[in-house]
Amino acid sequence: MQNLVERLLDGDRRALARMVTLIENDMPVARRYLAELHARAGNAQIVGVTGAPGAGKSTLVTHLVRELRHRERKVGVVAVDPSSPFTGGAILGDRIRMMELAGDPNVFIRSMASRGSVGGLSASTRDVVRAMDAAGYNPIIIETVGTGQAEVEVMRAAQTVLVVTAPGMGDEVQAIKAGILEIADIFVVSKADKPGADQTVAELAMLLSLDPTRRQRDKTTPAWRIPVLKTAAIKDQGIRHVVDAIQEHYAYLVESGMLSQRAQRQVRSEVQALLSHALMNALQQTITEDEWRTLIDDITARERDPYSVASQLQERIGLK
Amino acid sequence: MQNLVERLLDGDRRALARMVTLIENDMPVARRYLAELHARAGNAQIVGVTGAPGAGKSTLVTHLVRELRHRERKVGVVAVDPSSPFTGGAILGDRIRMMELAGDPNVFIRSMASRGSVGGLSASTRDVVRAMDAAGYNPIIIETVGTGQAEVEVMRAAQTVLVVTAPGMGDEVQAIKAGILEIADIFVVSKADKPGADQTVAELAMLLSLDPTRRQRDKTTPAWRIPVLKTAAIKDQGIRHVVDAIQEHYAYLVESGMLSQRAQRQVRSEVQALLSHALMNALQQTITEDEWRTLIDDITARERDPYSVASQLQERIGLK
Repeated sequence: MQNLVERLLDGDRRALARMVTLIENDMPVARRYLAELHARAGNAQIVGVTGAPGAGKSTLVTHLVRELRHRERKVGVVAVDPSSPFTGGAILGDRIRMMELAGDPNVFIRSMASRGSVGGLSASTRDVVRAMDAAGYNPIIIETVGTGQAEVEVMRAAQTVLVVTAPGMGDEVQAIKAGILEIADIFVVSKADKPGADQTVAELAMLLSLDPTRRQRDKTTPAWRIPVLKTAAIKDQGIRHVVDAIQEHYAYLVESGMLSQRAQRQVRSEVQALLSHALMNALQQTITEDEWRTLIDDITARERDPYSVASQLQERIGLK
Repeated sequence: MQNLVERLLDGDRRALARMVTLIENDMPVARRYLAELHARAGNAQIVGVTGAPGAGKSTLVTHLVRELRHRERKVGVVAVDPSSPFTGGAILGDRIRMMELAGDPNVFIRSMASRGSVGGLSASTRDVVRAMDAAGYNPIIIETVGTGQAEVEVMRAAQTVLVVTAPGMGDEVQAIKAGILEIADIFVVSKADKPGADQTVAELAMLLSLDPTRRQRDKTTPAWRIPVLKTAAIKDQGIRHVVDAIQEHYAYLVESGMLSQRAQRQVRSEVQALLSHALMNALQQTITEDEWRTLIDDITARERDPYSVASQLQERIGLK
């Protein structure tokens, strides 16, 4: 019998599913397999889709997958959004569309539980994407709700980030101002058949023209004009344009050299995250929960201070 | 001449200002002083004030400080909000009010640059609060814009968190849903003289009644009913009620045992943050920027994998 890595590389879906489970359960063997898979990954475009609840992300993702299948792409989906039909929060229509997708052998959908630490979630998402990538899925779509710290962290693994908003969600524009703007490569105004869609598009376009960081970035690298696209997913309207924009963005990333720049930043933060994880493990193995409690009590009682306790622990875990 | 710590403990404002500068510049001596100051801190109530830009945070903080001065409290303010008049983004009226406060010897205002890492900002804010606390300021108000990861992190240092919103900011309610709700102890609807204030109050009250996590928490600890208070800061209206609520919340924290629970959580996360900081330092001292680049290049070229690189670095920095 072939080993798991070989079967996964041969396109065996069950091997991929098994691998994802190993990653999610943080099994030590997963890391050894992933080290092998890393050599064979790096071909997929990683697309992030984010936005507030109700913005229409899941419907958009469903239609994107369909359009990508029309273009004969093998598509991976990782859903980190607790309100997504991929993870459980579906309304009936969504669920039916999902099941239709899940039956397609060239679509692999996996949801990630957002329990656990922020670092843990983004690490396991990155690892699952790596496994899908090595298995030949391309693109791989990561869907998150774009509000929490965990989700923004997860979005860092994407090369192309779509921010989805719907007409009449003035709140969305506010949220976008607050930080999402910086990570967006493509804006999608969903539910374009609703009143106010054109106004939302105009507002976003204005916001984009005002953003100083983006203007400054354009001076050093060739400009990517962030498109603001309208979709009415219910009629498949605009979806082709969105898929076109995703492909254009990838071409832009390659030509401008941004793809390798982003890859380098991501790899560095991944190595640092692995080391932080190792630090937390070392702490867990060095001091018992009882000892932690005693130390914390001493500090809160002002008998000791946090700086000297940290120094002492640093020595005990061997950290230079 | 007395040393800096002694002068600071004696209430010398210039010593405190010097200490804050040492913290901001991350001087090694700062930590030694802070270890001494820790033994003398722990008396201040730490109050966080957060909300979206335009919610009226700064005006509220100004009026809170005034009311607290009427009550003969010695008040510290740490502003992490880039749009705050404390840090520079003031309109004229705000600035005049600020200057008035800054002239009072029993008010100490310091703004924190939000440059640098998330971890760095929350660590230096915590240290500045510790110094003000040891110098006898109580309460100490931390003002942030409640949207980014950095600011939410900073808010963890507070014992009592005020979330400020204004009428007609439906977006605020959405933002609150997304995460701020979990950290709020008191809601303030500012600009209560504007239309829609009562509706905003009603909406918040409903949101609070629906929040399942909060209901569950109430089963294990005595209940704190999160008040939703209206202020029209321009007429000083409602400010006294807010200060009363802040004081009542402190009494609640003490009586319920939550104060020491929160202190213990904060201390633990502080010790972990200090260790993460030590990890990053150890890395910086162990490998040069050139070597980092080579390692990252090898990983992106798929000649090496991130897991084995992280293991190797772990060994080199001595981490068990």
